[in-house]
Amino acid sequence: AMEEVRVKILFTSLCHTDVYFWEAKGQTPMFPRIFGHEAGGIVESVGEGVTELAPGDHVLPVFTGECKECPHCKSAESNMCDLLRINTDRGVMIGDGKSRFSIDGKPIYHFVGTSTFSEYTVMHVGCVAKINPEAPLDKVCVLSCGISTGLGASINVAKPPKGSTVAIFGLGAVGLAAAEGARIAGASRIIGVDLNASRFEEARKFGCTEFVNPKDHTKPVQQVLAEMTNGGVDRSVECTGNVNAMIQAFECVHDGWGVAVLVGVPHKDAEFKTHPMNFLNERTLKGTFFGNFKPRTDLPNVVEMYMRKELEVEKFITHSVPFSEINKAFDLMAKGEGIRCIIRMEN
Amino acid sequence: AMEEVRVKILFTSLCHTDVYFWEAKGQTPMFPRIFGHEAGGIVESVGEGVTELAPGDHVLPVFTGECKECPHCKSAESNMCDLLRINTDRGVMIGDGKSRFSIDGKPIYHFVGTSTFSEYTVMHVGCVAKINPEAPLDKVCVLSCGISTGLGASINVAKPPKGSTVAIFGLGAVGLAAAEGARIAGASRIIGVDLNASRFEEARKFGCTEFVNPKDHTKPVQQVLAEMTNGGVDRSVECTGNVNAMIQAFECVHDGWGVAVLVGVPHKDAEFKTHPMNFLNERTLKGTFFGNFKPRTDLPNVVEMYMRKELEVEKFITHSVPFSEINKAFDLMAKGEGIRCIIRMEN
Ligand SMILES: NC(=O)c1ccc[n+]([C@@H]2O[C@H](COP(=O)([O-])OP(=O)(O)OC[C@H]3O[C@@H](n4cnc5c(N)ncnc54)[C@H](O)[C@@H]3O)[C@@H](O)[C@H]2O)c1
Ligand SMILES: NC(=O)c1ccc[n+]([C@@H]2O[C@H](COP(=O)([O-])OP(=O)(O)OC[C@H]3O[C@@H](n4cnc5c(N)ncnc54)[C@H](O)[C@@H]3O)[C@@H](O)[C@H]2O)c1
Ligand SMILES: [Zn+2]
Ligand SMILES: [Zn+2]
Ligand SMILES: [Zn+2]
Ligand SMILES: [Zn+2]
Repeated sequence: AMEEVRVKILFTSLCHTDVYFWEAKGQTPMFPRIFGHEAGGIVESVGEGVTELAPGDHVLPVFTGECKECPHCKSAESNMCDLLRINTDRGVMIGDGKSRFSIDGKPIYHFVGTSTFSEYTVMHVGCVAKINPEAPLDKVCVLSCGISTGLGASINVAKPPKGSTVAIFGLGAVGLAAAEGARIAGASRIIGVDLNASRFEEARKFGCTEFVNPKDHTKPVQQVLAEMTNGGVDRSVECTGNVNAMIQAFECVHDGWGVAVLVGVPHKDAEFKTHPMNFLNERTLKGTFFGNFKPRTDLPNVVEMYMRKELEVEKFITHSVPFSEINKAFDLMAKGEGIRCIIRMEN
Repeated sequence: AMEEVRVKILFTSLCHTDVYFWEAKGQTPMFPRIFGHEAGGIVESVGEGVTELAPGDHVLPVFTGECKECPHCKSAESNMCDLLRINTDRGVMIGDGKSRFSIDGKPIYHFVGTSTFSEYTVMHVGCVAKINPEAPLDKVCVLSCGISTGLGASINVAKPPKGSTVAIFGLGAVGLAAAEGARIAGASRIIGVDLNASRFEEARKFGCTEFVNPKDHTKPVQQVLAEMTNGGVDRSVECTGNVNAMIQAFECVHDGWGVAVLVGVPHKDAEFKTHPMNFLNERTLKGTFFGNFKPRTDLPNVVEMYMRKELEVEKFITHSVPFSEINKAFDLMAKGEGIRCIIRMEN
């Protein structure tokens, strides 16, 4: 239909957000539904009004879109498109409020405008990033969600100066990508903070130079970090979704110049609390969504970073299964094993 | 003594901070004490090790200093000098822990390293800004505290883009200076927010274009501002010291790009609370101290802004009394009348 494209998905991967909405704890349940939003594919056909994409283009679907017309899309700072920003409750196309999937005549709902656990899917053109056709889709597919989020949180938002010290709270896929971003930006000390010590060995590959497990200390982790760093870290990036970690990530930055960035998605009843003096002492707190990347404008450049070997994507990919074994990807995530599992649609 | 200068004070003015510590509600009482920190004077003599100042230099004392050696002084971003940042509990000189004032052989305490309600005072050289000798001290003396704080909060920290919309919470001297800073930076809508409607008429002279009195509305003021501005203001500057106003000032900025700056000094038990999603939606919260100006490096340039007529100082000065009538300045402040009252030391 108008402004829509049909994409043949070749590779997709499982992200936590799929699992949260599949479990539907605390979210509006909306079933039957086709999950999946981290993927790579090839445009099969385009609807009326689509001028920027043509059949055969290599693309990454994105869970949040870019209309290029609204105040957010026109702002240099925002990527929170008024028309196409993530909406986890919609389940239908924005154009006509209908689904493009059905079974036995009954609609199957979409998920965040992408629904990539499917051989073919239909997306609004604003949610599709056209990338270099030479980029291997079985690798760069993971750039369409978590990896770009963490990477962008560091390079676009925290912006650690060369030689600075950065704390990363939470060493899942997003936090590891944030560590990688801090390393690329030139940070010289990258302190990983996680309650799960089994994450630490892996995190070394992503630039972490030191580790703190809050469980090993009786003092608040803010104080542990302040003592390690002569008063506080220069930057911190929170990638846990836990509100206590958010508060710690803010309070551990150095007064005078420290910047903390929140990435984790909090519980709907979470409350961020701190003494306002922590702000007065010249600390900055920001949050980001998809690492402040504009999906259509910036994602192709992230792929180019990979092509120029400035960004290593392979180390995020720890498993691969055919589509018929997608449940293995769910099992791995439930066990906290590995980082990303690629799901191959064709074999 | 070593690294100290004696300054003849010519003009001083009363700031709220003097009154807070004179009332000593909730602060450590430390009496007898010479208050005063907003002033202008002339160097009378200098101690050993002082190379940047000489007798006859025109100077502004500053309640917070700049040693030029510590990590904060060397950082381009911070003005929170490790050695000389404001200390309201000290009451003595940093060099030898003694006072330079006495009465009947007993010491009189200093206040924030300045004690300008005195014909002569002694200060650490790091708390003294040398300014253009052509600048009229009876005017530019008010730049040594509140006015620079508000001005800098807007121009150095909030940095409103040209044509943007700014909300100023609290229209006292600091808030009016923040409004003036927003105007100088090129903001086109400046919305003053105060519980006291009598501030609104005066505020027009400082660039405020619109007003909101939270008492006139049943809706939260965040929502009132969002409705006036198509989703939120681009920048806000909080100059009240009230924690509810701090939360409102943060929550009223536009998602995607909004920046809120806290200036007011909160109650020691205050708690800043908000849903972390307000950060995730790409809002930024910062705090500032003395408008992020480095006292010795930057204050001379603020005086030059006045000399070039880019900054009007006269409109902040509503009253003037001789030193013998200093209590009138206290009365005016207690009644909330006027903005600044100059106290003349010589007649
Ligand atoms: N802002 C965005 O655009 C965006 C995009 C994708 C994901 N996310 C969010 O980012 C967060 C991380 O995603 P992920 O896929 O890497 O998750 P993950 O579950 O793989 O990793 C989270 C890590 O945080 C650790 N952790 C949990 N609580 C902690 C605490 N209090 N202190 C220290 N460590 C703690 C866990 O042990 C785990 O290793 C999630 O909240 C996710 O929803 C946000
Ligand atoms: N950060 C710094 O370096 C620095 C320096 C100087 C002063 N300050 C602080 O700045 C603040 C303002 O100083 P000032 O001299 O202008 O004070 P002031 O008392 O003259 O002005 C404060 C104004 O805020 C208004 N107000 C109070 N509560 C409010 C609320 N909830 N909503 C809206 N308006 C409200 C009052 O009606 C008043 O007009 C004070 O807290 C002061 O301690 C900070
Ligand atoms: Zn848009
Ligand atoms: Zn995802
Ligand atoms: Zn210093
Ligand atoms: Zn003051």
